Amino acid sequence: MQIRIYYEDTDVGRVVYYANYLKFCERARSELFFQKGLSPHKENEFFVVKEVHANYVKSAVFGDLLDVQSKLTIKKSASIVMEQKIYRDDELLFEASFKLAYLKDYRPCKIPKELFDVFE
Amino acid sequence: MQIRIYYEDTDVGRVVYYANYLKFCERARSELFFQKGLSPHKENEFFVVKEVHANYVKSAVFGDLLDVQSKLTIKKSASIVMEQKIYRDDELLFEASFKLAYLKDYRPCKIPKELFDVFE
Amino acid sequence: MQIRIYYEDTDVGRVVYYANYLKFCERARSELFFQKGLSPHKENEFFVVKEVHANYVKSAVFGDLLDVQSKLTIKKSASIVMEQKIYRDDELLFEASFKLAYLKDYRPCKIPKELFDVFE
Amino acid sequence: MQIRIYYEDTDVGRVVYYANYLKFCERARSELFFQKGLSPHKENEFFVVKEVHANYVKSAVFGDLLDVQSKLTIKKSASIVMEQKIYRDDELLFEASFKLAYLKDYRPCKIPKELFDVFE
Repeated sequence: MQIRIYYEDTDVGRVVYYANYLKFCERARSELFFQKGLSPHKENEFFVVKEVHANYVKSAVFGDLLDVQSKLTIKKSASIVMEQKIYRDDELLFEASFKLAYLKDYRPCKIPKELFDVFE
Repeated sequence: MQIRIYYEDTDVGRVVYYANYLKFCERARSELFFQKGLSPHKENEFFVVKEVHANYVKSAVFGDLLDVQSKLTIKKSASIVMEQKIYRDDELLFEASFKLAYLKDYRPCKIPKELFDVFE
Repeated sequence: MQIRIYYEDTDVGRVVYYANYLKFCERARSELFFQKGLSPHKENEFFVVKEVHANYVKSAVFGDLLDVQSKLTIKKSASIVMEQKIYRDDELLFEASFKLAYLKDYRPCKIPKELFDVFE
Repeated sequence: MQIRIYYEDTDVGRVVYYANYLKFCERARSELFFQKGLSPHKENEFFVVKEVHANYVKSAVFGDLLDVQSKLTIKKSASIVMEQKIYRDDELLFEASFKLAYLKDYRPCKIPKELFDVFE
């Protein structure tokens, strides 16, 4: 998944605002489902992030074209852990792990099979 | 209503990103209701913006403390027009008019009396 | 230019937050330059938005894939006006005109020829 | 420091978008300096986030009024670690630690004394 850096992503430090790397990772996670014609979000059922552990290695700047790489590392019935890395060409800019839980009516719930299978 | 400019509001041009002035105006509109112990948003009922006409006069920068002034100019049963101005001290930075419609289940609906009265 | 709607773009009304349509239009304007190997932003020179006139016709929702169409309508030496429309398939969701001025060291300045030519 | 939750902070899941808690923590960190008449950002000198470790405990919703509590836990000459917690009344919603480095011309640099003293 490719991400272009626009004005909205940058800040007065002339680099990408730190919280926005989490947006880029979320886009890549949602796109995993969209690409299969599925949605990670139904009326009252969806994934929520429970934990984030992130390292900021180098900064992205306006106009950059970044790659987000995603890997599932832990897969349980109601939660998963994904490792995601953001590169500019071969240069690692950001890496993070995300623990996600699946909720139905705001309570933990088994991940539906069709969504679970996306991670195979 | 006062708005502080943080990193998230700025961009690589070292000024506030242009779409964010619309956020500041929206905060001031919501705060009109919050200050009276009301909410502009119920389950399936809320205001939506239908039109915006905005002039950008001067730019705000990181650390600025801005004032948002709001005035109702047109008040109909299902829609209103508000004029909002953003100042840094006595200096006008931004002015805009917003046409808002009230929706229930995504259809136009009369504004409930308790919300309507906030504009008195 | 295509825009996917992600979580970050939506709000509690379950539709796209109104200020974000301005972000989508800005992405399309920047991409006009990126596609030609140019940047709309140099150290102390860049376009700023002076006026916005926007109509919100229908709402976009999570997962939508939108098209942004851009047309130059007025072209002066130091400012331009663009009309931009956002569609979901054949359905018009949003239309707006944007007056942009070119600044150098925060003062109005003639648009450089290589950027000006992008609008031919 | 108090944070009100507006439309812009929420998403289609009807809760606050996960990356926005990082914005709230950053606002509180910047405000530490603003309250003393200082700025955490000079021309080419500023703090950048190097690491984030975050736990999402409960979700904030539209209209909430949150408290951000900040504590310095590690203080070195060129970097610090802060622990920040976000509460709604007595209820913990979010907790995170942030490792921040000070940069000058994009290189690690000793934190200036006047900024360093803010953490006393």
